[in-house]
Amino acid sequence: MALVVQKFGGSSVEDAAAIKRVAARIALYAKAGHEVVVVVSAMGDMTDELIDLAQEVTAQPPARELDMLLTAGERISMAVLSMALNANGVSARAYTGSQAGMITDELHGGAHIIDVTPGRIRSALDNGHVAIVAGFQGVSRTTKEITTLGRGGSDTTAVALAAALEADVCEIYSDVDGIFTADPRIVSSACRIPEISSEEMLEMAAAGAKILALRCVEYARRFEVPLHVRSSHSGRIGTVICEDPDRDFPIDPDLTRLGALAGACDVSPTKEEAPVAFLTEGGHEAPMITGIAHDRSEGMVTLVEVPDTPGKAAAIFELVASVGAHVDMIVQNVSTVDGTVAISFTIPEAHAEAATRALEAARSEIGYRELRYTGQIGKVSIIGAGMKSNPGVSATAFRALSNAGINISMISTSEIRISVVTRVDELDQAVRVLHTAFGLDGEGEAIIYAGTGR
Amino acid sequence: MALVVQKFGGSSVEDAAAIKRVAARIALYAKAGHEVVVVVSAMGDMTDELIDLAQEVTAQPPARELDMLLTAGERISMAVLSMALNANGVSARAYTGSQAGMITDELHGGAHIIDVTPGRIRSALDNGHVAIVAGFQGVSRTTKEITTLGRGGSDTTAVALAAALEADVCEIYSDVDGIFTADPRIVSSACRIPEISSEEMLEMAAAGAKILALRCVEYARRFEVPLHVRSSHSGRIGTVICEDPDRDFPIDPDLTRLGALAGACDVSPTKEEAPVAFLTEGGHEAPMITGIAHDRSEGMVTLVEVPDTPGKAAAIFELVASVGAHVDMIVQNVSTVDGTVAISFTIPEAHAEAATRALEAARSEIGYRELRYTGQIGKVSIIGAGMKSNPGVSATAFRALSNAGINISMISTSEIRISVVTRVDELDQAVRVLHTAFGLDGEGEAIIYAGTGR
Repeated sequence: MALVVQKFGGSSVEDAAAIKRVAARIALYAKAGHEVVVVVSAMGDMTDELIDLAQEVTAQPPARELDMLLTAGERISMAVLSMALNANGVSARAYTGSQAGMITDELHGGAHIIDVTPGRIRSALDNGHVAIVAGFQGVSRTTKEITTLGRGGSDTTAVALAAALEADVCEIYSDVDGIFTADPRIVSSACRIPEISSEEMLEMAAAGAKILALRCVEYARRFEVPLHVRSSHSGRIGTVICEDPDRDFPIDPDLTRLGALAGACDVSPTKEEAPVAFLTEGGHEAPMITGIAHDRSEGMVTLVEVPDTPGKAAAIFELVASVGAHVDMIVQNVSTVDGTVAISFTIPEAHAEAATRALEAARSEIGYRELRYTGQIGKVSIIGAGMKSNPGVSATAFRALSNAGINISMISTSEIRISVVTRVDELDQAVRVLHTAFGLDGEGEAIIYAGTGR
Repeated sequence: MALVVQKFGGSSVEDAAAIKRVAARIALYAKAGHEVVVVVSAMGDMTDELIDLAQEVTAQPPARELDMLLTAGERISMAVLSMALNANGVSARAYTGSQAGMITDELHGGAHIIDVTPGRIRSALDNGHVAIVAGFQGVSRTTKEITTLGRGGSDTTAVALAAALEADVCEIYSDVDGIFTADPRIVSSACRIPEISSEEMLEMAAAGAKILALRCVEYARRFEVPLHVRSSHSGRIGTVICEDPDRDFPIDPDLTRLGALAGACDVSPTKEEAPVAFLTEGGHEAPMITGIAHDRSEGMVTLVEVPDTPGKAAAIFELVASVGAHVDMIVQNVSTVDGTVAISFTIPEAHAEAATRALEAARSEIGYRELRYTGQIGKVSIIGAGMKSNPGVSATAFRALSNAGINISMISTSEIRISVVTRVDELDQAVRVLHTAFGLDGEGEAIIYAGTGR
């Protein structure tokens, strides 16, 4: 028998009916004899509603009090889910982040997990209970204050608990069937990826694939927690993320074989899996490209005519980092005859104002002629461990985009990723063109459920 | 400067606007230099909504999980209130019952406070913060589980904290101006009682005055916590409850003198105070009757022809207690010629089914002939410490009721209370008749705000 950590997001527990469906699914695991720990987010839009309530009272709620407020959301969902399980004949107990031993630093609103002491959860399992844990929250080590983990916090709670409990697998449920070769809303022929390495998943997440937060993937990789990203609407296998894709799972991940999930969800056979793109030259069989990710949340800053003297780039990016802005791609062109360079970088639009204000203020000091900002850009990324050893991938990509008349304004590459900046209105077409160019198109339509994963 | 504990009920914090009004009031105390601890209930109907949510999932939620769910309500209100105070320029921190040191027994849904360890609250005050504490909740001593205190729990939290912190006064806010000589919705000429002894308040609460829960008054009396029951809609003095009514308060309870509450509430001069009823014979000046309370939540059980042998009453009431039913008034008439007695008692209607079922089952064992149950009765009570030494109070009461044609079906007396059972449709008239008979009628209309106190 295995120890499974399962995480359900807000859309999976949006109302009493949804909570009952989730409870039926958990009960299936518990009744099969597995030890189950469930991490749950707040119901539906509860977190947004609580933020709205705070805004009615003050435009700037203190971070400590906001954390106290927001953690009420998970308290409600976890208690109701526990009730639903007990009503299903499964003994369950709900625990706050603090009770579950999620120890964090003091950074309210974006705390980091610094230790996990899951003694009460271990006891609950030993006593035959399913343990339900509030996601997204913890308690600070020194001040014993309630903290929240910020964006992607519930996923991270699940992975951290799975690591501390040495769980066999951490299942992340959302309303999509797993990780796809591209966003199925853009590429109708996108296919589910049955297995992906942590390294590739990191690049996918960094490149804009929204289904898993970057920090959650990083945590899982560091502590070697096998992840299984799957849908709460079906019994099908999703995408397994781990270092060793040939690893045997001690728990059969296919609910169709676990038996009667009758009524609780659709257990029809899984959609045809992704055809993997092989590089025909050379003859070896490693799949080359795993998927195409995209992002439209960034803007692009270009500094024109920066003096080509040592230390300029360092000065620029120290300045940008000092205002808390996260730089993504950086490109510097070759020095031109006039002894200046152009430096471009992408940055989340939310950080752009602070960064450009700091750079404008330092204009004479840095000595550039002009700052240009493009408000919303498109970024498309090709990801695949196979491209490390395969030349010609970037050439194939640029040719495909060029044939479609799509202009490229920035290029950045890593060993397993190629990212390209396009105009935002050409982004969807760029995703489709690349998906086809690398042979990822499957047959038939991808299955999309209502809403988006969170 | 004083230490004040203030408790605000759900209707005082029903929405963001109400929370801002409450914050303005608290800020007045804090800015005057007082140390302030605030106990708050869940917003408006939040607790009922959470119970409804639980019922959607299961008819019988486990008590532990229900406590976890319900405590989310106070977590929300206390965090938002704390934000509103900080927005008002007053440093505030919100604490859960557990953080505030409310240690209880293990009885989920109706836990008893067994210790209060308010170290964090004391520190918060020492650091110049207003401490906001979630009412109604605590943590169990041995199992460290979240508990709720049940009915009247927030009032009890406030009194327990006031006792542990040795507060100068505990202010209980609701939407009425204090304790009245009768319910102003029934007796338009009812007057506010400026001061009342703990003993009389206990009898008032036991006799159905809803404004303070019985257990809160008991706790305050035991730990000698002075209570001040007042309205969150005005700056007027309410009713002060303490052992020694001549006690000097270190804090001026009249907000009209505390200064600019401009806009936050009505600070118009207080309504004319209650004329106190004197017994003219004998000439001493102790006020005789404090007020008239009523209750329509009880039913009456009568056992007809109970054998007049020793131990019968004990057997009956042991049986009733064994099913958890709370007996209020008990009357046994004098044995008649046939050697039987009739025993009548009143009981909350909610407990009646369990009690009558148990008695029906034991009918042959007890040996009574018939059980009669009257579903809703009226109970009117006359309360006043002065009646101890004044004969003739009951005679005055019975004469007044008789003159109004109101039939009395049960009578029960203590040293400072006379209670009478009437038909429920005659109860309001009985309250008015007695209010007049004991000279309690004031001039003009009593002030009633929307809603009822909780």
